[in-house]
Amino acid sequence: LINSIEYWIDRFFQKDIVALSKILKEVENETTMGMEFIQHPKLQNSKAHIIGITGPPGAGKSTLVGKLTKLIAELGLSVGIICIDPTSPFTQGALLGDRVRMNELAKLNNIFIKSLATRGNLGGLTNSTSDLIQVFSAFGKDIVLIETVGVGQAEFEILNTADSVVLLNVPGLGDTVQTLKAGIMEIADIYVINQADRPGADESVKDLKMMLRESKKSDWVPPIVKSVATQNEGIQDILYAIQKHEYYLKSTNLWDEKRVSRRYKRLIEVTKNEFIKKLEEKIHTNSLYINIVKDLEEGKVHPVYASLIILKDMKITFEEGLNDKN
Amino acid sequence: LINSIEYWIDRFFQKDIVALSKILKEVENETTMGMEFIQHPKLQNSKAHIIGITGPPGAGKSTLVGKLTKLIAELGLSVGIICIDPTSPFTQGALLGDRVRMNELAKLNNIFIKSLATRGNLGGLTNSTSDLIQVFSAFGKDIVLIETVGVGQAEFEILNTADSVVLLNVPGLGDTVQTLKAGIMEIADIYVINQADRPGADESVKDLKMMLRESKKSDWVPPIVKSVATQNEGIQDILYAIQKHEYYLKSTNLWDEKRVSRRYKRLIEVTKNEFIKKLEEKIHTNSLYINIVKDLEEGKVHPVYASLIILKDMKITFEEGLNDKN
Repeated sequence: LINSIEYWIDRFFQKDIVALSKILKEVENETTMGMEFIQHPKLQNSKAHIIGITGPPGAGKSTLVGKLTKLIAELGLSVGIICIDPTSPFTQGALLGDRVRMNELAKLNNIFIKSLATRGNLGGLTNSTSDLIQVFSAFGKDIVLIETVGVGQAEFEILNTADSVVLLNVPGLGDTVQTLKAGIMEIADIYVINQADRPGADESVKDLKMMLRESKKSDWVPPIVKSVATQNEGIQDILYAIQKHEYYLKSTNLWDEKRVSRRYKRLIEVTKNEFIKKLEEKIHTNSLYINIVKDLEEGKVHPVYASLIILKDMKITFEEGLNDKN
Repeated sequence: LINSIEYWIDRFFQKDIVALSKILKEVENETTMGMEFIQHPKLQNSKAHIIGITGPPGAGKSTLVGKLTKLIAELGLSVGIICIDPTSPFTQGALLGDRVRMNELAKLNNIFIKSLATRGNLGGLTNSTSDLIQVFSAFGKDIVLIETVGVGQAEFEILNTADSVVLLNVPGLGDTVQTLKAGIMEIADIYVINQADRPGADESVKDLKMMLRESKKSDWVPPIVKSVATQNEGIQDILYAIQKHEYYLKSTNLWDEKRVSRRYKRLIEVTKNEFIKKLEEKIHTNSLYINIVKDLEEGKVHPVYASLIILKDMKITFEEGLNDKN
């Protein structure tokens, strides 16, 4: 049967690109079929090395991902790429841009690119990212690269999703304090100063070194690599640093711990999303909820009080204070 | 009684700064007292004009907020400022930086500054921001300024919280497409090109104009203002644009709609947070949950399946597919 799970799973394990594409799409859209796929016993595989590439807009992430992927593919490993596009809250459409360059990459063997929009979870990774990683891993990809756009929420979610986080920066894109402000400095395992042919590169490396010395948290000493991605300079150094981090994780129990924690986070996420969906459905159909929301909107009750009524009805106990400390 | 709600409410309405500070703190920490404060009938006030100031790190947000606040205070209006600091997921401590400059501002009459850390809601506004706005408004602040750091999730949340969103950019901090990538271009009501004495300012204005023409969504035509905040240039133009937007909102029903939507979002947020707290508590105490999480962590069941069991137990129906479209 052309629409049966087993049919597609079979094609999938015959390394059929159409099946990979189909399963990625169903899983991304969280359809019934996608949910069956993702729970399929044969798809439980978490061997791939998951690498997050992040950094502020303009740091050269897409160029670096391109060069790095080419180097990895030529080494003989296969790569799945997940690109996370911003979606405007108004247009709901994904932007184009340097996706065009990516299409050239996709022509190479052993490389598959999946572009995501961040619908409904603005600024963050889409809900299904960890499931998509699992699909790539089951397909036999050795490496899954996740490229995120911008700085903020997404970067913190990468921390929970990737094994190795590479943070790109460029000289002159704000001083160290400004970068710190973005709150993404301490999540990286590998730091890259890209466009290192621009003035101030060595100062940036020096500032970074000092900062990392102060915030040392584990045995892993994050390397700082200089690169000029457009000139293909420093790409091998970045790959070397990534491999070194992989062996570090595997020599400790961090590799396994990250996989366990990823599953747990996904459980909380799925459950939370389903709860909100149910809540919003009830708000529009159940008369108790309709009335309390009416009072809320007319300013007769406060959101915290309205929430109390709803949580009681849903049999979810409301604590004394939301966050009492004494 | 010194610890009674009424005692502090009385002092609060006598314009006592200690009471303002106390109530802001309780509300921020979502304590039992804070929750009682926020539901107090006298505190239901949403007259203040809420202005969000956002933009990428290094654009000069703090400097602009300083100059703008001074200008507004000298005009005779009172201002509450909410500064949202990044918090590292590791250090859990708020960064210092230009908060020092802010302290000078705080010496002026009619200005009160509340600094927040983004605990537990990384990259986003803290849960209680809309409640803090309400407290400032009830205290009689004419204007509440919210300064967010970085780009990403926080900016989209400002869209739901602020009446008027001011987006700062600087010439040369990446081209238009790069800025678009951050996904924050279309949320603004007023655009500011700061550091306009740097090369490329006029090109940035031109690019922006073209982009806005293409994405026109309402009667409001977002003005583009050039400024050099450090030199105090263009600040009056920014204030004029903000006032113009206020009168526009009040001449339509958008002013009221924004207030209703803010209350609704807060309801969903409070309810969701309480659900997650309850869920995580059960996961650590209830034997059914402990076992399912054990199976999950050992890779025996998929997160989606584990979630199904939990949602069933909590009497929250699980839909056929999470997101079926056909």
